Amino acid sequence: MFTKMEKTRVFRDPLYGYISVDYKIIADLIDTRELQRLRRIRQLAGVGQVFQTAEHSRFTHSLGAYHMANLVIHNVDGMDEVSDYDKMLLLIAALLHDVGHGPYSHAFESITKVSHEEYTVKLITSPNTEINKVLSVQPGLADDVASIIAHTGKFPLIEALVSSQLDVDRMDYLSRDAYMTGAAYGNIDYYRILRSLRIIDGQVYCKASGVNSVESFLMSRYHMYFQVYYHPTARSFEVVLEMIYRRIYDLHEKGYRFEAKIGTFIKVLNDPENLEAYIELDDSYVGGVIKQLVHSKDKVLSTLSKAFFNRHLFKVIDMDDEPDPELVEEIRRKYAEMPDGKYFIKDVQSSGRAYNHTTKLEDINTITVLLPSGKAKTLEQFSPIIKSLTTKSYKVINRIYYFEGYEG
Amino acid sequence: MFTKMEKTRVFRDPLYGYISVDYKIIADLIDTRELQRLRRIRQLAGVGQVFQTAEHSRFTHSLGAYHMANLVIHNVDGMDEVSDYDKMLLLIAALLHDVGHGPYSHAFESITKVSHEEYTVKLITSPNTEINKVLSVQPGLADDVASIIAHTGKFPLIEALVSSQLDVDRMDYLSRDAYMTGAAYGNIDYYRILRSLRIIDGQVYCKASGVNSVESFLMSRYHMYFQVYYHPTARSFEVVLEMIYRRIYDLHEKGYRFEAKIGTFIKVLNDPENLEAYIELDDSYVGGVIKQLVHSKDKVLSTLSKAFFNRHLFKVIDMDDEPDPELVEEIRRKYAEMPDGKYFIKDVQSSGRAYNHTTKLEDINTITVLLPSGKAKTLEQFSPIIKSLTTKSYKVINRIYYFEGYEG
Amino acid sequence: MFTKMEKTRVFRDPLYGYISVDYKIIADLIDTRELQRLRRIRQLAGVGQVFQTAEHSRFTHSLGAYHMANLVIHNVDGMDEVSDYDKMLLLIAALLHDVGHGPYSHAFESITKVSHEEYTVKLITSPNTEINKVLSVQPGLADDVASIIAHTGKFPLIEALVSSQLDVDRMDYLSRDAYMTGAAYGNIDYYRILRSLRIIDGQVYCKASGVNSVESFLMSRYHMYFQVYYHPTARSFEVVLEMIYRRIYDLHEKGYRFEAKIGTFIKVLNDPENLEAYIELDDSYVGGVIKQLVHSKDKVLSTLSKAFFNRHLFKVIDMDDEPDPELVEEIRRKYAEMPDGKYFIKDVQSSGRAYNHTTKLEDINTITVLLPSGKAKTLEQFSPIIKSLTTKSYKVINRIYYFEGYEG
Amino acid sequence: MFTKMEKTRVFRDPLYGYISVDYKIIADLIDTRELQRLRRIRQLAGVGQVFQTAEHSRFTHSLGAYHMANLVIHNVDGMDEVSDYDKMLLLIAALLHDVGHGPYSHAFESITKVSHEEYTVKLITSPNTEINKVLSVQPGLADDVASIIAHTGKFPLIEALVSSQLDVDRMDYLSRDAYMTGAAYGNIDYYRILRSLRIIDGQVYCKASGVNSVESFLMSRYHMYFQVYYHPTARSFEVVLEMIYRRIYDLHEKGYRFEAKIGTFIKVLNDPENLEAYIELDDSYVGGVIKQLVHSKDKVLSTLSKAFFNRHLFKVIDMDDEPDPELVEEIRRKYAEMPDGKYFIKDVQSSGRAYNHTTKLEDINTITVLLPSGKAKTLEQFSPIIKSLTTKSYKVINRIYYFEGYEG
Repeated sequence: MFTKMEKTRVFRDPLYGYISVDYKIIADLIDTRELQRLRRIRQLAGVGQVFQTAEHSRFTHSLGAYHMANLVIHNVDGMDEVSDYDKMLLLIAALLHDVGHGPYSHAFESITKVSHEEYTVKLITSPNTEINKVLSVQPGLADDVASIIAHTGKFPLIEALVSSQLDVDRMDYLSRDAYMTGAAYGNIDYYRILRSLRIIDGQVYCKASGVNSVESFLMSRYHMYFQVYYHPTARSFEVVLEMIYRRIYDLHEKGYRFEAKIGTFIKVLNDPENLEAYIELDDSYVGGVIKQLVHSKDKVLSTLSKAFFNRHLFKVIDMDDEPDPELVEEIRRKYAEMPDGKYFIKDVQSSGRAYNHTTKLEDINTITVLLPSGKAKTLEQFSPIIKSLTTKSYKVINRIYYFEGYEG
Repeated sequence: MFTKMEKTRVFRDPLYGYISVDYKIIADLIDTRELQRLRRIRQLAGVGQVFQTAEHSRFTHSLGAYHMANLVIHNVDGMDEVSDYDKMLLLIAALLHDVGHGPYSHAFESITKVSHEEYTVKLITSPNTEINKVLSVQPGLADDVASIIAHTGKFPLIEALVSSQLDVDRMDYLSRDAYMTGAAYGNIDYYRILRSLRIIDGQVYCKASGVNSVESFLMSRYHMYFQVYYHPTARSFEVVLEMIYRRIYDLHEKGYRFEAKIGTFIKVLNDPENLEAYIELDDSYVGGVIKQLVHSKDKVLSTLSKAFFNRHLFKVIDMDDEPDPELVEEIRRKYAEMPDGKYFIKDVQSSGRAYNHTTKLEDINTITVLLPSGKAKTLEQFSPIIKSLTTKSYKVINRIYYFEGYEG
Repeated sequence: MFTKMEKTRVFRDPLYGYISVDYKIIADLIDTRELQRLRRIRQLAGVGQVFQTAEHSRFTHSLGAYHMANLVIHNVDGMDEVSDYDKMLLLIAALLHDVGHGPYSHAFESITKVSHEEYTVKLITSPNTEINKVLSVQPGLADDVASIIAHTGKFPLIEALVSSQLDVDRMDYLSRDAYMTGAAYGNIDYYRILRSLRIIDGQVYCKASGVNSVESFLMSRYHMYFQVYYHPTARSFEVVLEMIYRRIYDLHEKGYRFEAKIGTFIKVLNDPENLEAYIELDDSYVGGVIKQLVHSKDKVLSTLSKAFFNRHLFKVIDMDDEPDPELVEEIRRKYAEMPDGKYFIKDVQSSGRAYNHTTKLEDINTITVLLPSGKAKTLEQFSPIIKSLTTKSYKVINRIYYFEGYEG
Repeated sequence: MFTKMEKTRVFRDPLYGYISVDYKIIADLIDTRELQRLRRIRQLAGVGQVFQTAEHSRFTHSLGAYHMANLVIHNVDGMDEVSDYDKMLLLIAALLHDVGHGPYSHAFESITKVSHEEYTVKLITSPNTEINKVLSVQPGLADDVASIIAHTGKFPLIEALVSSQLDVDRMDYLSRDAYMTGAAYGNIDYYRILRSLRIIDGQVYCKASGVNSVESFLMSRYHMYFQVYYHPTARSFEVVLEMIYRRIYDLHEKGYRFEAKIGTFIKVLNDPENLEAYIELDDSYVGGVIKQLVHSKDKVLSTLSKAFFNRHLFKVIDMDDEPDPELVEEIRRKYAEMPDGKYFIKDVQSSGRAYNHTTKLEDINTITVLLPSGKAKTLEQFSPIIKSLTTKSYKVINRIYYFEGYEG
């Protein structure tokens, strides 16, 4: 059904050695402009401002997720009973799962209210994209891939492998982000995890003997979140950006005439369905716009844009450090009373949906453990450590970000 | 007080690159026959039968612990207020902390009832050892080093750094055992840990901002225990050995005349104070003795020795797997009724003191966290994950090991 | 003379663990917009199109070279006799040595005829740059730093450490490029190299006992060049770019009115001294310009720009493969006869100055080996392997790049 | 023909992650006492005295060579045309190639004049070994495996893959020894090498495009030899041992009655065909014997044995350092005149056959390079770097080892 190329295409990768592409459809998808565009969008957005070596793009992660899907196909017990079509869905969905990401997605989504998953679906199903053209070799294929991204439940096994508590996406990005930042925590024994999994009647189980490797994976994830993804300065950078986006949005609503060439941006704000405009957006576009806005006559916009460029970021108060309540109150009052003060203070709770990488950690218990006796337990029942990650006492970071040096 | 050598002595090490020795006293201790003897005792004993590449000796670990002590001295906040004498105690105690280990110590200790720490103290303080001669350059030094090993409380800070929940011993062995086995779990960011510590008034604190690195360290430890140190086959190997030791001991008590040359062994059983005999014991001595005992007329001894050599180990039932209770009962009854059946079955609970590497995980809460406000909390109060490791629900492995194919 | 900061600033780095900055002047230089701009210029330019994970910027390499300089200061024998001022020159020159690089420098330099080193000097000495302002804390400092970049010979030792056959620049970039591409060849034992060096009377020697580590370093370099930097496809990408630059230049000379906004580019072509314009140039600026030129009415420009974007690169003939001479002649004739054919074929000889990273490999013999007897030899005299790299028979790659599918 | 086991047996390995054994015959061979004995013989013999972390055994290397053979089978172009029987020969020969090694083989061979390869052949073909029993499942198999070890030319392709300039033996040991010593030089891109090879009509070619990876491999080998295997202190240790062996041999010839229990040793000296005795020899046996000989009444033996144990090794003069010729002459004269002086001085030339790991580097040119045009060249013709390794000017180490402090 799917053609293999005469010559395997090979990508060098420092994590895996080599990534091989055998199918023509995969090679063609890699060459689409929508996927190539991910070369210009950094995987870690604001985090890269703190971990300065983490300069890798969403493109390399996408190839990595594809490779991990390939490893799943060749190493997980029970995959031989999955149909060739479903295996191809897995490879394609893994490769495309992040294609809808915009630059600094999290901040962007907070104002457009369109998630990157929705854009991924659009880019797959819209008849004008190169991706859609490639997928059209097989009727229904584009819709089936999109259904996996959208979690419709049509292909529950493939959905689980692409996006769940233990999926090809996370297995690649935790390893890769650790490799690129130099954090020691993301060292995942993915091969052992794959060997611990078992597919029975279309459901993924973890053998009891392999639970430790899954515990270790989830702990790596936990540590990467608190050490890297939720790093206070990294988040501060994203808060500034979100405020800039929000101010642009509000000014645009009021009919403000911007001093910068931000047409593409406005097009997307006006019509989120404008995919042509959307895929023009990348890190350097956003960087260029903000560079111009430093000179805006709107004081809020120029202040925030300068803050972004000079790395004069928002200050942070971590509630876990038990700060002086009066001081906190005073800060809150100051911004509440200031006109436009709302652009200069923000409460951020990091956990759950706090970061666009995250899915709810509470769902961890959806991993099912298979005992030698044949009985099954949830991971939470089986592992007290995992239980500790799912309880109320589970660590949540509450921070106040505020800008010092703006007096309205 | 302590002489530096003209030329630094350098040991290559794959974990650290290079280990440097500047002080003559350290170089002289390394050259003593008591420490050199550790080259012939493998760090992981029975575990090396399962993880076959883990062939490293206690000697390389001892050098590693010394190096880690050196890193502590040069990297931990507040170490500049520690006296030169105390720093030297730290270096020496780290280097010598394992010198009393015998071959397959855990099994050995179970019959002699003398711990390896006690032997370490003896080898440091007995006037006939080379170690004692080296230490005698400074009056009182040997006793002070011994007091640290014996946990007398005379040098509480140095004791804590050498042996506590977070010490130079563990930081080296977790990293090294992981490197040697290929387990991904022991990848410890020790440099970050060192930078997270702070010594105030002779007590070790962990800064709140560094708690994640300590959590990660403790989780690595947890995983190394359950994946590597408590591996069922590795433990089985040690159970066989313990049974051999026990049988030798019982036969010796009854005046049995052994068919093998086990004089040195008997000397130690008769007089645990016989250090000359004790330091003759090493892995190959034990191997040689058991090889001979394969031909013993005592059926218990020959059966167990054959089992050891042919890797025909004890079978394992893991109670977590919820085995059929009747089957378990039947096995227990069989060995209870069999003469000498006690040598062929053993209940093993892995946790707490189960393995000689371990100290009580319950003590984890002795690490104190320093908040930015200056307040302190126990690690357990601060971190729900660590709390989960200390509660009753904490994972304990209950296993029954028994030998199949012996009918009395 | 130079102020230390109260708190060391620390950068995480996957190669070195941590990079520490103690001096305020270094921290201030890192924060200048000229150095921050390097975040937007990729280290490997066209090579990154082939080794897709090599997405790192010149910024991370600059920090790495600074760190390597710091290691030199603390590890090389004889550095204690170097003055504090000269040590600071070393740190600063290492940090700034690449600051003049433009986007895809090699192609760019081929038309402007201004080298990136010249731009580095300008950015250091021009009174309008942030770098110059930071350096002005100490009279004469900017000129002294510039003199090292320009190889005037005023500080011969520092020049040798920053840029010679064995310098902090190469030690970082070979390691880093290998880490990022996944090539196994750049694994340099830099610590051992540093320990092999010895400074006597302001000259760098390599002890005979350490020559192997230098041989290994030079071989790593050799392999990185032939495997990575001279990769045929990577070079092809740069050839396309060079042709685009050249066509723009030629059209501009003729007064062509470009269909794209390329004002900044033209400013630099008109006046290479326009630093304000020059530092606006970065990878995404160039990418943006070329994207627009796809629609140019000039057929040469639109053809080449499309080739660049669609990765429809020039074909390569490697003369080492002993191609059919008639075929080669036919290709040459075709483009010679075609109007504007010169934009579509190019002979490339890779060796010597072929790549902007390179310095002449023939100069390798400038490393001097110190024998235990006190005598000195050139490395070439000492090592037959190195001799083989310097002789005429030394490998040179001769390739013809040509574009298929343009018929004039 | 060869049975697969129901369950793959998996060995963890830090270099490869996992080593898989599918065939019963391989698993059975691993369990033989002859192969298990290699656990007690260290791979690096005297080198381990200098690189103290290199404590790995010949057993782990043997598994590694088997694994590399498996990688060859699954990755090298053209292996699909090799018969299943020949593939099995490759796996078995790789696994068993070192089984004849004795403890500190090199020194041992110098007196018995029986090479370890000859012992390997004997252990495979003698009807009393466990290996022979396992191989007897298939008539002729043992002889065929032995023919590969003995280089009879019956299976030229398999011989080349097991033992040539570029074979599974070297690919494992260079990587492994580097991993264990921490030397940076052995970092071999073996996967890329495998992909560069191509088998045509039973001969191994290297594609021109992959020559760099082979150059890199050969340079790694070169560096490992000069940095690790030929390390002057490591070789000194082996010289002492060789002298002990030689003195024992000479005394035995004269009918000396040894003060130590060295019966097994003598049995082998008397009858090299005594395999039962031979396989009793291992590192700890040799260590035990020498420990006893410290107290020998023969002064030569006691002096050398003490030297061995106290690491009071032979001094080294490296002729490359251009030592004072008179001094050299004086030393030579002293030992020439001393009775038994021949046991205390030795000229060692390190290159070619100098070390038992080595084969003649001059044979490097046997690797054949396949050009894209279909023509072939020797590697030497193709690569000037390799040519430099094969010429007369190629580095040879000439050293004089002599013992200080013995006056006859």
